Amino acid sequence: MVKIITISREFGSGGRTIGREVAKRLGIPCYDKELIEKIADETGYAKSFIEEEGEHAPNSHKLAYMFMGRGLDGLSNADHIWMAEKKVIEELADKESCVIVGRCADYILKDRTDCLNVFVYADTKFKAERIVKLYGESHLNPEKRLADKDKKRKLNYKYFTEREWGRYNNYHMSLDSGFLGINQAVEMIVNAAGGTK
Amino acid sequence: MVKIITISREFGSGGRTIGREVAKRLGIPCYDKELIEKIADETGYAKSFIEEEGEHAPNSHKLAYMFMGRGLDGLSNADHIWMAEKKVIEELADKESCVIVGRCADYILKDRTDCLNVFVYADTKFKAERIVKLYGESHLNPEKRLADKDKKRKLNYKYFTEREWGRYNNYHMSLDSGFLGINQAVEMIVNAAGGTK
Repeated sequence: MVKIITISREFGSGGRTIGREVAKRLGIPCYDKELIEKIADETGYAKSFIEEEGEHAPNSHKLAYMFMGRGLDGLSNADHIWMAEKKVIEELADKESCVIVGRCADYILKDRTDCLNVFVYADTKFKAERIVKLYGESHLNPEKRLADKDKKRKLNYKYFTEREWGRYNNYHMSLDSGFLGINQAVEMIVNAAGGTK
Repeated sequence: MVKIITISREFGSGGRTIGREVAKRLGIPCYDKELIEKIADETGYAKSFIEEEGEHAPNSHKLAYMFMGRGLDGLSNADHIWMAEKKVIEELADKESCVIVGRCADYILKDRTDCLNVFVYADTKFKAERIVKLYGESHLNPEKRLADKDKKRKLNYKYFTEREWGRYNNYHMSLDSGFLGINQAVEMIVNAAGGTK
């Protein structure tokens, strides 16, 4: 029986929208931005800092990252955020049925058997049009914004999990939201959550 | 509109069974073993040879493979099989709506916009139990049989397509048939084929 649905996603693929809609359909909460508030409560860091540092770090060379911004306990800001993230996500999963978007939740909850882990992606054209529509233009072209953000997600995931972000067997389903459509992806996840063997 | 469904799969994941069932549900033919007959007609090679050499080669070092068994035209057996495979699959896709299992069909048909490309996989336990049940015991343990077969599929795919077998963005959906169940996977593919945007 599925209790938790984790959604990992390429930037711009609609993963967050899909997560919210799946949660609405199933009548359960969706944690996305709300996770940041909880991590802020745990760590004392500002929400904007967590948003920058947490999911998107390491932002450069791995070695530089490892020695960057360490406190007296030898842990970096990113390490503190990771530990808080892990605690918050584990507690949520224990407490209630929910959808969790991003934040390596698939890995953090990997020892549970009641998680449905989903990866959402799409082709560059679909994502580029979507981010311009949703977030507006920026000084970088959309393709560059997509590549930058996913590169950071990939590095962050690799650093903390030792696994490859997007690799099929980290997830139970991977869906191309551009080809299938957002609604169809929602439908598939809702069905899978209710209908696994 | 989806006309062709290609199914790539880990050995033992039930991809072939899923392909046959999807085809039955949609009332269209499924090409799997039938492809080998068609490739045999094209090339003049024996079916058993195509089965061995085609999907499973290169069976050792890439360089050795490149110089292995070349004829007077400078092409290897595997190259001849690849060219015939490409021709057969392209002609089938032009001719009729169908399901094609294996044989790099996702790559061969990559320029078409009417293909739904699916990858099917499962965890080792599920696959090991399944192959022993379906194909019986062998002198190798099931885990070794699984690893060998998929390694060959991976190398063959890489050699001819320059892409990574199983990489999510080669496909429109990747499904864990062990977690979701064979029936649920069939249902999802049938729905996706009829319901893409």
